Amino acid sequence: MSAYIDLNDYLQTTGARIEQAMDRLVPPKTQYPEALYDSMRYSLFAGGKRLRPVLTLATVEALGGDVEAALPVASALEMIHTYSLMHDDLPAMDDDDYRRGKPTNHKVFGEATAILAGDALLTQAFQLLGTMEASGREAVMLRIVGELATAAGSVGMVAGQMADMANEGMKANEERLAFIHAHKTGALLTAAVRIGALFADASDQQLQALTCYAQKIGLAFQIVDDILDVVGEAEKLGKAVGADAAHGKSTYPVLYGLEESREMVRRLTAEAHQALSSVPLQTNRLQEIADWLVNREV
Amino acid sequence: MSAYIDLNDYLQTTGARIEQAMDRLVPPKTQYPEALYDSMRYSLFAGGKRLRPVLTLATVEALGGDVEAALPVASALEMIHTYSLMHDDLPAMDDDDYRRGKPTNHKVFGEATAILAGDALLTQAFQLLGTMEASGREAVMLRIVGELATAAGSVGMVAGQMADMANEGMKANEERLAFIHAHKTGALLTAAVRIGALFADASDQQLQALTCYAQKIGLAFQIVDDILDVVGEAEKLGKAVGADAAHGKSTYPVLYGLEESREMVRRLTAEAHQALSSVPLQTNRLQEIADWLVNREV
Repeated sequence: MSAYIDLNDYLQTTGARIEQAMDRLVPPKTQYPEALYDSMRYSLFAGGKRLRPVLTLATVEALGGDVEAALPVASALEMIHTYSLMHDDLPAMDDDDYRRGKPTNHKVFGEATAILAGDALLTQAFQLLGTMEASGREAVMLRIVGELATAAGSVGMVAGQMADMANEGMKANEERLAFIHAHKTGALLTAAVRIGALFADASDQQLQALTCYAQKIGLAFQIVDDILDVVGEAEKLGKAVGADAAHGKSTYPVLYGLEESREMVRRLTAEAHQALSSVPLQTNRLQEIADWLVNREV
Repeated sequence: MSAYIDLNDYLQTTGARIEQAMDRLVPPKTQYPEALYDSMRYSLFAGGKRLRPVLTLATVEALGGDVEAALPVASALEMIHTYSLMHDDLPAMDDDDYRRGKPTNHKVFGEATAILAGDALLTQAFQLLGTMEASGREAVMLRIVGELATAAGSVGMVAGQMADMANEGMKANEERLAFIHAHKTGALLTAAVRIGALFADASDQQLQALTCYAQKIGLAFQIVDDILDVVGEAEKLGKAVGADAAHGKSTYPVLYGLEESREMVRRLTAEAHQALSSVPLQTNRLQEIADWLVNREV
């Protein structure tokens, strides 16, 4: 199917499939305590590009795997991403009132519920993986549990958020900034691709090439975000432009300048394409996604 | 070995084994961001009865399973329990300054780090399960992932904490109080026993009996906690006596009176013993643990 529709159609169709799957996997509940379930769904269905689950499904497709069967795995990625946003927005953390133009979770449900609903979404990602139909494929699913937890936890995403908090109000050097991006966003983006590859039984060589692809686009994606924070328009991002600078955060444009940052994005994107072409794969869609990620109004 | 030592020796020896395992599994780290790892270990090694992992290991032993191999699984239970205490203590939640006589995590490391270190411990529990040696036993390990996440998440422990927050300052009725106890503490205690049973390849009949045992002692344990809050001495609990009453929380003594609460504990303990004796098991240690739990200075 994917060969017949362009990337925008693909992103829209795939995003809708993911939302339907999440609606089924995290259904509305009228049971006590309702506010917990309302809060989880409020953030889970607050929009967004669904980039991580899209990457998982596009990788499964590139390997000729079963995209439909991979939907719960892809959803688990999005649930972890969503919980991380909920906790990052808390007053004790980034203290953000809005995300994607909507009030943040704790502004609507209160801090306690936002903390607990975030905890619940994180936990439910593993509940999904541990309880989905996996007959005969338990070893792969268990490895996926390990990959996801490693990427999300204390040597992955959480370490990145810790580093990002420490970066507020002081100038991080190049090494520290690379650490933040590799961990805060890079680890989970890379896991999204790797988990798709594991689910679709990639060879070691394929897994290695896809991991390289994911690391390159993960960093490019974050540099683009930094650039957009400087030059973007408020309505396109749904947050105040220059917010990073206002928080005193170091970013790629601050450390390297705009032109050099753009050059880095170009170089990383080329390397991502190169990684894909090094192994036999149906990689059209992954190539398109790489280009789309870096061409967001830079 | 266990037949030769009394329960106190067993608890001390087993507690030390669990702490050694956790020290190996969550080692001190001198790498950036150090505060995250310090914060995780601060709460993980802040003492406590290690009741959940002890239950897991005692269950494995009752079934003749490999106690040494079960240590990472038992540790995962304690990591989830610890994260839940860290988040419960936060200013937005119970706002506690002390736990077991020591300053709470956020008083030492700050709120942001306490939130993130809690997230990291929760995640690391699943990382442990997903990456431990499990050759040929992946189906069991995956089921354990599902059990643990279900017990800890939105239909388990987190739902209990939500309900407990709502209980502050108002009187919960009997049904609501039973919900809080069954979810906030009961779910994870039951999971501790069930996960030990699954790990040691219990039969369905054994699993059912052990689940019943765990549910009974889980509730008895919580009622004893409620009673101790009324009649206990401050130094024994390491927190202010009457704290629940001061928070305006409903408890078993408030709803049922002290004598009826004590009678409930006796009845539940008897039922726990009965459940164990219904199946062939080496249950001495589990019987002793049930008696020990309810005889804490009631």
